[in-house]
Amino acid sequence: MKAKITLKDIARELEVSISTVSKALKNSEEISRDTKEKVQAFAKLYNYKPNNIAISLKNKRTKNIGVVIPDIVHHFFTTVIRGIEKYANARGYNVIVCLSEESFDKEVINMEMLANGSIDGFIMSLSSETQEKGDYNHLKEVTEQGIPVVLFDRITNEIDCDKVIIDDELGAYMATKKFIEQGKKNIALITTDDYLSVSKARTMGYIRALEESDLGVDERKVLKLPSMEMDEKSIKKFMDSQELDAVLCVNEIFAVYSMRLAQQKGLKIPEDISFIGFTDGLLSKYANPSLTVVSQHGEKMGEVSAKMLIDKVESEEEEETYQTKILEPTLVIRDSIFH
Amino acid sequence: MKAKITLKDIARELEVSISTVSKALKNSEEISRDTKEKVQAFAKLYNYKPNNIAISLKNKRTKNIGVVIPDIVHHFFTTVIRGIEKYANARGYNVIVCLSEESFDKEVINMEMLANGSIDGFIMSLSSETQEKGDYNHLKEVTEQGIPVVLFDRITNEIDCDKVIIDDELGAYMATKKFIEQGKKNIALITTDDYLSVSKARTMGYIRALEESDLGVDERKVLKLPSMEMDEKSIKKFMDSQELDAVLCVNEIFAVYSMRLAQQKGLKIPEDISFIGFTDGLLSKYANPSLTVVSQHGEKMGEVSAKMLIDKVESEEEEETYQTKILEPTLVIRDSIFH
Repeated sequence: MKAKITLKDIARELEVSISTVSKALKNSEEISRDTKEKVQAFAKLYNYKPNNIAISLKNKRTKNIGVVIPDIVHHFFTTVIRGIEKYANARGYNVIVCLSEESFDKEVINMEMLANGSIDGFIMSLSSETQEKGDYNHLKEVTEQGIPVVLFDRITNEIDCDKVIIDDELGAYMATKKFIEQGKKNIALITTDDYLSVSKARTMGYIRALEESDLGVDERKVLKLPSMEMDEKSIKKFMDSQELDAVLCVNEIFAVYSMRLAQQKGLKIPEDISFIGFTDGLLSKYANPSLTVVSQHGEKMGEVSAKMLIDKVESEEEEETYQTKILEPTLVIRDSIFH
Repeated sequence: MKAKITLKDIARELEVSISTVSKALKNSEEISRDTKEKVQAFAKLYNYKPNNIAISLKNKRTKNIGVVIPDIVHHFFTTVIRGIEKYANARGYNVIVCLSEESFDKEVINMEMLANGSIDGFIMSLSSETQEKGDYNHLKEVTEQGIPVVLFDRITNEIDCDKVIIDDELGAYMATKKFIEQGKKNIALITTDDYLSVSKARTMGYIRALEESDLGVDERKVLKLPSMEMDEKSIKKFMDSQELDAVLCVNEIFAVYSMRLAQQKGLKIPEDISFIGFTDGLLSKYANPSLTVVSQHGEKMGEVSAKMLIDKVESEEEEETYQTKILEPTLVIRDSIFH
């Protein structure tokens, strides 16, 4: 078999980005005519076909599921994988995991590689760069060819496919309301920029709870970091700049680090300052004090995603319908707040 | 293409284990003649070929690397993956990750799936069940076909291939010696059974340090758990059963949990009792007090493994030589011991 030319090859050869190649092949109006002609001519010359083996997929099941996720440093994604593995294995499927490392290019390359006949369908959570760019052509490519995709956690409305999320807005609302009920007045939020769908929803829940109370929203109490990557310096500066008595964090790593900062200042948890984080991982459980969290039920999310995908893979229906399942978050109360 | 029959299919059809099928096809003396004949006849009937696409691999590079690891709950493996990704991406390779979840069967199934033309070579750490069984036929199968394999961390001497480990014995020796230098007398070890290669080496280092001192080894101070899975009950029972002033743990999760138990009893860390764990992960860094660790340099281990594998994949040499690289562990001193 002759080596197949990929989007990546074309991008490298013509010295443009993978995103540009992908858009040019779709005849996107965002790309100049000159570039489009060049890309299309090159693709024709080298007989480029998008995932050409995949077209025959419906007839040739691999019994493999491709999972593409942003990272495995955050415990949440590792629990989702565990849920996917459990459910998929029980139905006789293997699971292949690829990491986008929050990079758009890596997400595209991984999907292209897997769509090439290795798997029956995708379970994915979008990279932050993909959500920032808002470029979903690689997903369209795959779904248009009839390869089933289930998006979880970090999703987009631009792609018609099955989706599984938790109600992030509600989770943040519940957590913030808990702080208010316990008499906290200066409630901060440490999150990321709004391009990340989950952060946007959580920020909305935080705001809703505060607006329903007498406290109102004070923008200085919201720290928006550029990504989910740990940024000790920014968090320290934020925590040092004002008097806070409660902090909600968009992940458990930010929360556990913030707790340490408060302790170093001699503050008592939860008396002087309380903490709640998202993600119920090992860090939260074994922190000192243990961290109250909004559990996203990662394992459940993985199981539900795997069920939706395998059902679709094995379905004989021609007509495609898609659903979005919304799981309810739960507050797991531990020692970082009053109880 | 007709669906290829796999080891798993044969095992299911004949109602025997995958291990039995694998051994029977290799004509192993461990397997009864009756079973061997049945398996071999079935394999012949359905035209079973081990990884038949793989034979042409040398001529058809996929630029993909298959990584098979026991789990991603332990931070160590996630850092190794990060190192592999970094190095492999820089050389134009993609990385596919499969989890054995500590299961022999899943390890075999994953390898069989990936060896089927999807990848150029394997980077692997053995599942605990594989090390317990001591059955490495699936690895022999792959190496005999000329698919390069690099084993890291959990390795076996039964397979000729490149290997990367850290000097686990030295790491445990350094940690135990540190406790002794700081005047600790009742030094415990929380580890797993010896079938796990890394645990065996770490236990040896602990014993060597104690034997070199006046303290000597007291077997009651060594807790051997059945696996790396968290087992709160056994650890609590062990910690409650005796007076200890230092604890070395084979991973960071055991260590952070043990610290909590000591704190709940009102003990001061490090004055009353000190702790050191293996793996320098987020748990260690953000624990309270922060945990002193033996760093295994996971990212470095990943980079070295990826370099060895890709060099072998791209090598034109016919003669195969193998090397074992041993990385030096480092003690990262934090607040769980005197400093």
